[in-house]
Amino acid sequence: MSFNTFGKIFRFTTWGESHGPAIGCIIDGCPPNITISEKDIQKDMDKRRPGQSKFTTQRKESDKVIILSGVFQGKTTGTPISIIIYNTDKRSRDYESIKEKFRPGHADYTYFKKYGIRDFRGGGRQSARETACRVAAGAVAKTVLKNILGKKFNVIGAVTQLGLMSCDKSNWNDKEINKNPFFCPDKKSVKLWEKYLLAVRKSGSSCGAIIELRASGVPAGLGAPIYSKLDTDIAASLMSINAVKGVNIGAGMNSAFLTGEENSDEIRKSSGKVKFKSNNAGGILGGISSGQNILASFAVKPTSSILNTRETINKKGKNTKISVKGRHDPCVGIRAVPIGEAMLSCVLLDHLLMHRAQCG
Amino acid sequence: MSFNTFGKIFRFTTWGESHGPAIGCIIDGCPPNITISEKDIQKDMDKRRPGQSKFTTQRKESDKVIILSGVFQGKTTGTPISIIIYNTDKRSRDYESIKEKFRPGHADYTYFKKYGIRDFRGGGRQSARETACRVAAGAVAKTVLKNILGKKFNVIGAVTQLGLMSCDKSNWNDKEINKNPFFCPDKKSVKLWEKYLLAVRKSGSSCGAIIELRASGVPAGLGAPIYSKLDTDIAASLMSINAVKGVNIGAGMNSAFLTGEENSDEIRKSSGKVKFKSNNAGGILGGISSGQNILASFAVKPTSSILNTRETINKKGKNTKISVKGRHDPCVGIRAVPIGEAMLSCVLLDHLLMHRAQCG
Amino acid sequence: MSFNTFGKIFRFTTWGESHGPAIGCIIDGCPPNITISEKDIQKDMDKRRPGQSKFTTQRKESDKVIILSGVFQGKTTGTPISIIIYNTDKRSRDYESIKEKFRPGHADYTYFKKYGIRDFRGGGRQSARETACRVAAGAVAKTVLKNILGKKFNVIGAVTQLGLMSCDKSNWNDKEINKNPFFCPDKKSVKLWEKYLLAVRKSGSSCGAIIELRASGVPAGLGAPIYSKLDTDIAASLMSINAVKGVNIGAGMNSAFLTGEENSDEIRKSSGKVKFKSNNAGGILGGISSGQNILASFAVKPTSSILNTRETINKKGKNTKISVKGRHDPCVGIRAVPIGEAMLSCVLLDHLLMHRAQCG
Amino acid sequence: MSFNTFGKIFRFTTWGESHGPAIGCIIDGCPPNITISEKDIQKDMDKRRPGQSKFTTQRKESDKVIILSGVFQGKTTGTPISIIIYNTDKRSRDYESIKEKFRPGHADYTYFKKYGIRDFRGGGRQSARETACRVAAGAVAKTVLKNILGKKFNVIGAVTQLGLMSCDKSNWNDKEINKNPFFCPDKKSVKLWEKYLLAVRKSGSSCGAIIELRASGVPAGLGAPIYSKLDTDIAASLMSINAVKGVNIGAGMNSAFLTGEENSDEIRKSSGKVKFKSNNAGGILGGISSGQNILASFAVKPTSSILNTRETINKKGKNTKISVKGRHDPCVGIRAVPIGEAMLSCVLLDHLLMHRAQCG
Repeated sequence: MSFNTFGKIFRFTTWGESHGPAIGCIIDGCPPNITISEKDIQKDMDKRRPGQSKFTTQRKESDKVIILSGVFQGKTTGTPISIIIYNTDKRSRDYESIKEKFRPGHADYTYFKKYGIRDFRGGGRQSARETACRVAAGAVAKTVLKNILGKKFNVIGAVTQLGLMSCDKSNWNDKEINKNPFFCPDKKSVKLWEKYLLAVRKSGSSCGAIIELRASGVPAGLGAPIYSKLDTDIAASLMSINAVKGVNIGAGMNSAFLTGEENSDEIRKSSGKVKFKSNNAGGILGGISSGQNILASFAVKPTSSILNTRETINKKGKNTKISVKGRHDPCVGIRAVPIGEAMLSCVLLDHLLMHRAQCG
Repeated sequence: MSFNTFGKIFRFTTWGESHGPAIGCIIDGCPPNITISEKDIQKDMDKRRPGQSKFTTQRKESDKVIILSGVFQGKTTGTPISIIIYNTDKRSRDYESIKEKFRPGHADYTYFKKYGIRDFRGGGRQSARETACRVAAGAVAKTVLKNILGKKFNVIGAVTQLGLMSCDKSNWNDKEINKNPFFCPDKKSVKLWEKYLLAVRKSGSSCGAIIELRASGVPAGLGAPIYSKLDTDIAASLMSINAVKGVNIGAGMNSAFLTGEENSDEIRKSSGKVKFKSNNAGGILGGISSGQNILASFAVKPTSSILNTRETINKKGKNTKISVKGRHDPCVGIRAVPIGEAMLSCVLLDHLLMHRAQCG
Repeated sequence: MSFNTFGKIFRFTTWGESHGPAIGCIIDGCPPNITISEKDIQKDMDKRRPGQSKFTTQRKESDKVIILSGVFQGKTTGTPISIIIYNTDKRSRDYESIKEKFRPGHADYTYFKKYGIRDFRGGGRQSARETACRVAAGAVAKTVLKNILGKKFNVIGAVTQLGLMSCDKSNWNDKEINKNPFFCPDKKSVKLWEKYLLAVRKSGSSCGAIIELRASGVPAGLGAPIYSKLDTDIAASLMSINAVKGVNIGAGMNSAFLTGEENSDEIRKSSGKVKFKSNNAGGILGGISSGQNILASFAVKPTSSILNTRETINKKGKNTKISVKGRHDPCVGIRAVPIGEAMLSCVLLDHLLMHRAQCG
Repeated sequence: MSFNTFGKIFRFTTWGESHGPAIGCIIDGCPPNITISEKDIQKDMDKRRPGQSKFTTQRKESDKVIILSGVFQGKTTGTPISIIIYNTDKRSRDYESIKEKFRPGHADYTYFKKYGIRDFRGGGRQSARETACRVAAGAVAKTVLKNILGKKFNVIGAVTQLGLMSCDKSNWNDKEINKNPFFCPDKKSVKLWEKYLLAVRKSGSSCGAIIELRASGVPAGLGAPIYSKLDTDIAASLMSINAVKGVNIGAGMNSAFLTGEENSDEIRKSSGKVKFKSNNAGGILGGISSGQNILASFAVKPTSSILNTRETINKKGKNTKISVKGRHDPCVGIRAVPIGEAMLSCVLLDHLLMHRAQCG
């Protein structure tokens, strides 16, 4: 049971609402004696932080992380790391007008049906604000992974589809990703994407996105079949992100269209190393890493909060209409990039620890 | 930690290898006083059973389930239900010739890297034979769900894409699904699919598939945010099935291409009932069921065991070639239908129990 | 895996060190729509709070609880309740002189052996300061239990043995317990205990204690055999408290000396109610509550921090001596009373939720 | 949640009823490449096996273990080890006469209250027959521990109190324990114990026992504070055994009577080794092993099935009387020795794996 906890050995528990005083997370099971600082974590936080361009929500949050426990004289002690982030730019009044209505596409209706009570201020717990905590946990996981696996280990994500706009993946350039407000890996697509997203926003609508993730430097042998497979846990970790509706590992849904020959990535030994001639498996076979790059992608649905009027019902069960004003991302998928990187990092560290538990 | 256990309250643990004496599962947390018999379970087993048509492996297994505990005088007692299925048609000699080689696309290489030992007979534990146990657990889950939710509850799956062949979903007919060897819901596609799959098999290759699942009669309120969301657990349950590489909930990966308006399924009250005007969410909002049908789909990669020769390496790290003879499904995706149904049933029951734990 | 988390459905995770900025806990799985306030929790906190008499440590902590999430407009929302307690009276300098030495009886040596690093300020994470968080979680559990079970439900604890001093249990009076600084249920023993404990403190030593707990109004049927038995979880919950070395259920260790006749508490039906003629079982049979009072007791060893000089080694492995100055309880067992009550409350609520999950 | 599963990484799940066709367990998370055979396990099984002397039940069970999975060519593969033990000497008719009555001291009443159904044949799932599975799992754990820690690792248990009869612990001799039917470590007590237990049995009654356990060769550093402390898990593991009512670690309940000086086992470095001058802590400080011997003891209540007539009620709630005939141990505590050893072994292995997960 783990309603608000993720992971098995390296575990994090998140808490807090969009418009409460603060949000935070407890990281448990972190290996001891790892050098870590608030600054290390902040770097990742800043990648997810809202209000950095006109393409994200204008809510201004510094998302400053404060470590309250588990780190002593700059090093992890092996005890729980408590991280708190204060909410500083709340505007709960934005939600007064819709507090009796269920925003379609949001979880207003389902939270109310489940709990018989809901925090209407910015969606309360259902808000994607919770994901800031995941990024903090992911930053810790990445630091530990680099400490154990060395610098060859890396996790990188990018937006490869912005609504109807794709990018040219043959132009993929890792260095380009952080240079544009879309985490787009193809420099040539950026201008078009700007135009497109501005148009979407002006029209009072929103759009979805596809994010691709790649982890390199992951050793073979991680993943615990049958029900803690590496791909199972990656799928769960990504599907748990707000607004995600689909997850692929390697060729993903397109696997259905491959031939048996294409699908079975051939194996070669060359210069003393095991090499695969393709990577349709996304680096995972039978739920265990093969030493290839781990490849995963996921789709984020369009922001549900849109200006254009939609039909809905209110708490009393009466038909009504709604137009969601306030500050919203025209495409929440963009800020899902650092979240996806964080979740993948947490899963990989968790499996590394699990592997050394059973296999030494 | 749950290497070989699935679920949180309604849990099942599976054991056994493809060519060992038997396989089985222990179901724990099952509500007491539910009428259940081996016959009820057998019906579902027979849907997954191999050797029933020329389109599946010719291994002949009766897959007869025997209940060893947890049922007294025809009723569940609330204690563990142990189910055993003997392996009766093993041909381990089929694997002698390839016991030193890693079959590409299979988990031979990764199991060996992880554990330093592997059972080469039919893949041992990595074999999809394990999924027979899931179907048994799913049959129990379905029986309990019908007992609690009534007859309106149902889970149904179908193959909607067989390799390159799609079907016409506007012809979907539930009753058609079990009448053809492909679990195809569109009668008109069956003949073409037969031709196609025979050709694939004759060519020494294999193909993938997409399976769609629908659960109806599921009440609103199931699903425990943030890290036990209903969609998170469905994604994990399906991704854990052998050869699955992609999972969609509702519009899934296609969510990226929707407009904000399309995405936010509008809500109406009519004739005293809450109705949604569309179901792009697949019946799940914020990880909680909305009362709509639960819609999920998943892609199964082509069978990795193919006659056509592929390059690989052996245990000593030498380059070699492999052609996998023996008895294999030309499309393992077909038999994934009852497995998907079983996993979805287990997740739904687990969440129903979880919900009544927290919310009464 | 739950290094810093307790419970299965109603779960709490604690964090923080004795001399860090704060300590706290996250309560997950709490039923929604329960009225709760910081004031309700504070009442229990005050029972454990140090510095209230000359018989406890003179560290002055207000132990003021602040709820940061999970409660909206005075009611639980079903989402994580985050509670923070700031440390206000730290005196880390007290520990400078012993920071290289391992205090015998404490976990200094074992933490260092395990993690290769330790927070020497007041023992860091090993400090019983952590138990303040348990009391907060227990206060929430008790509130929920009273909401579900009604006012007949109650948990009460008392010290029945203070070092070498017993009390006369035939004088047990619930109302007396909170009127003296020892939580002693026998008014007549209080004066003697005062003299005794002052003498112990003056001598530079410390003493142990036995605490007895009683839960009334617990329905029959709670407890999940085989490995989540009610008594198993009570034993674990109490043994996890700092300095506890023994746990009894009902007759406990003395069960060894009973006859078969005495042991098997006879059952009678009278005035329409099931009554037991004795309660050696402590209200639990086969791990399941019988409807009788739940009876548990536990022993707390003497405070390990004593003035009298003891032999030990330092971090470099050299033999040395130690005398622990600073502020310490002469008998930590006293303040274990509210902690024991809290743990028992958490276990009972957890099992009540588990029971309604499986058995409706 | 783990109704019928014990452990965190090294986990076992048991199933089966006293009078069903078989009982068994699934061991998950076992390290791979460990040499193990049915014979190794059988040796421990035979220690617990009934019918070996006139001082235990006359039910004749060979308790022959059969490994169904997880071992390939004599070695563990890292996948689930399924063990089955057939019930061969059932006499369900013995229970016909009492099937409507609740045996006092047994869990008949509580199982019925919880589940609304119970298997009356020998108590069904509540029977101590389940503990045979624990011994099998413990034998696997011990084998793995010896493989990792070397021959210096050992777990040994003995009965030190048989009803009212104590033994002289200063005569403790490990080699004596398996030479008498009581697992008594003091040769001189055996004759007296024989007389005593025969008298107890003849009188139609039964008696309790205290069992002491000692694990040697356990490295410092095992145990995961706060809620997976080594002593917490040992307490849980022992309290989960049928009829156990009290658990002590080290000085246990007697800790209450120690002085602060006695309690804080002094530490010395001599001949390059860390030595403690006493072991009141039972080898555990702050929930972490210190490198000393692990010492635990537990009390088993008298057998509840006795010939002498007791008052009780039946399923209809009517007052009645009961005298339990059939085959029963006059002191179930005796056969608890190998069970205690098994549980302690499982906990130690589990913590060793957990430790290497977090701390490498």
